[in-house]
This record gives sequence, structure tokens and C-alpha cells, in this order.
Amino acid sequence: MNAFSPTTLRLIQALKAMPGIGRKSAQRLALHLLDKDRDAAANIQVAIADALDKVEYCRKCQLLWDSEICSICTDLKRDNGLLCVVESPLDMMAIEESMAYRGRYFILNGKISPLDGIGPTELKLPLLQEMAQESKELVLAISPTVEGDATAHFIAEMFKNGDQKITRIAYGVPFGGELEYLDQQTLFHAFSFRADI
Amino acid sequence: MNAFSPTTLRLIQALKAMPGIGRKSAQRLALHLLDKDRDAAANIQVAIADALDKVEYCRKCQLLWDSEICSICTDLKRDNGLLCVVESPLDMMAIEESMAYRGRYFILNGKISPLDGIGPTELKLPLLQEMAQESKELVLAISPTVEGDATAHFIAEMFKNGDQKITRIAYGVPFGGELEYLDQQTLFHAFSFRADI
Repeated sequence: MNAFSPTTLRLIQALKAMPGIGRKSAQRLALHLLDKDRDAAANIQVAIADALDKVEYCRKCQLLWDSEICSICTDLKRDNGLLCVVESPLDMMAIEESMAYRGRYFILNGKISPLDGIGPTELKLPLLQEMAQESKELVLAISPTVEGDATAHFIAEMFKNGDQKITRIAYGVPFGGELEYLDQQTLFHAFSFRADI
Repeated sequence: MNAFSPTTLRLIQALKAMPGIGRKSAQRLALHLLDKDRDAAANIQVAIADALDKVEYCRKCQLLWDSEICSICTDLKRDNGLLCVVESPLDMMAIEESMAYRGRYFILNGKISPLDGIGPTELKLPLLQEMAQESKELVLAISPTVEGDATAHFIAEMFKNGDQKITRIAYGVPFGGELEYLDQQTLFHAFSFRADI
């Protein structure tokens, strides 16, 4: 005998489609929403409906936003000559919080990953090319993973004959990082690219 | 500059209200729903609306179900003389899967927990009393935690002068459990309640 009604089972199934939510977690979430906190359930329902209706990709930088052009692309105080390419809004947020950069962004919303069926065409790179026309420098702030490196390499190749300078953020030992726990590749890179002091 | 639009932020906030979902998880879920899988988002939205509309507590056993009386309470093949008291539908499901029990259930949907403001009145115990009138035996299948013990004790006291026999499931060493890793309390209990073979 199943302890969940058909409607509850459909809710569990729907919740399970989210990343990181397994069967047990979905059951627990569904029970919580129906038994303990129906207000939260109603909030989520309205918030999803609202977001599906209003949120779309910014036509320029591809950030998910409530209007056709996001508030960074319309911000006149940003340096128009700099364009930073990131994988996701979360990376962009981390950069914004570091206060290290005041230019514009282009959000790839993914990275080249043949195994997941994501090639250069899925990343809307033509839109990057369009946006980069106004820029003097393209800063690649892409995670140094296998897929990230492939993506950065592809973009660098794409702009090889362009007018823009292509740079990427520095890789090396993070502040507060302890050398003894660091991976070989980072240390190797840190030594190869050592700088005068 | 926030990388999330006001509508996206509201979605993140709504998702964060679920147990076990922190700020980072909520951000990742929201991005996944809006960027990678809008169908899943629409499914969740419809499933929540549907569940909020249809799912209610069974009038007899308090199981969340799609109709006033759940399909266990309407099952004529169940033993009417046995009533098993459990904390949640998940516990009931585990018992059903063990095939150890074929009576009826009463779902507390919680346990006595003064710190969370849950006392005997929050557990709909009058409904348990009503349902127990048809039963010969009340089996308490409540987790042996501090709160579970308090709940079981309270229910046992409640039926002290009733006609029903009150039992609780056996506690001891679980099958496959290794003695050396078992906690003291379980071992103590297992020795105190040792049985003839």
C-alpha cells in the first residue's frame, strides 16, 4: 500500500526533477509542503509562475532578468571597453562581490561539454561576438576545469583575428590556501608563472 | 550589483523556505529551473497547485490523501482490531514495505516537542481516541528518541483505563547491525529484554 496519494506522488515526481533532489528528499519536501507549511507551497507556486512569465535572457549579455535588457547592460557607469565572459550568474555574482571588476559581462549559461550535448552553438556565441564589438578587452573568467579550458580555448580562437585583447584571470595559489593541501596542477602553474616582487 | 532579478530573487526566497534548502542551493535550483529546465518548473508549479487543491488529511487516520477517507481506511481486507500509531507517512510506508502488519494506521504527523511548540493538542489526539474505539490493540511504532518516547508515553497514559491493549514495537539490535558499532542504550536495552531461544 502506498502511503502517498496519486496527487502527492505527482508532486514528489515533479520535485525530484530538480538537481540534487533524490526520491527521499522529494518525499520529505512534499510532506513538508503539504503537512507543515502550505503557505510556503503556495509561495513557491506563485513565484515559479511569476518567474516563468517574467524572467527571460537579457538580449545583450544573456543574464536572466525581468526585462529585455538587464540592469547591468543599462548601467551607464560601467566600463564599456571591458567585457568579462563567465559561465553562470553565480560566477558573475562572486566577481561583483569581489569589487574587482566594473565592466560588462557576457553569461555563457553553460560550458562546452560534448558529453552533455553542449557544443559552441548551444552557448549563443554569436551574441557574444555581437556584444564584443563594443569592447577593447575580453576577460575570460572561466573555471580552470577540462570543460572550462575547452570553452576558453574555443572563445580565444574565435576572437584570434579580432581587434580585442583577450585575457584570462590569473590562476594560482588562493589567499589563505595552504600549500601542503594544494593540488599538483595549481602548484605547477603557480611556479611556472611566478612573478618578480 | 545583484546577478538576480527581483522576480528571480523572490523565487530563490520561496525555495529557501523548504527544509534542507539553503541560500546557495536555492540559487542553484532557481537557475536550473529558469535556465535549464522550464518544463520541470512548470510541472512543479502545476503539481503544487493541484496538491494544495486536492490533498487533505484523511478524516479517520490523518494520512494526507486525495479524498476525505484514504484508501487504507476504506480497505475492507485490513484487520480492524489493530491500530498502529506512527509519526509520519514515511514511517507508515516503511512498515507497509516490511509486510509485517496488516491493520490500520493513525498518523500523528509529528511528535510532542515542546521546543517546537508541539504539544498533545497539536497532534489531533482526540481523533486517535475516536479511531481507537474500534480497535482491540494499539501498536505504538514511534521512533525511540526523546521526543518519540514522550509521545508514546503520553498516548499510553491516555489509554491507561481504556479497553485496548497497548503495545509497542520491539527495540534491540537491528539485523545486519554490528555489535561493536552499536550505541550503549540499544545494547543495554537488548540485554535487559533478552529472550529465551
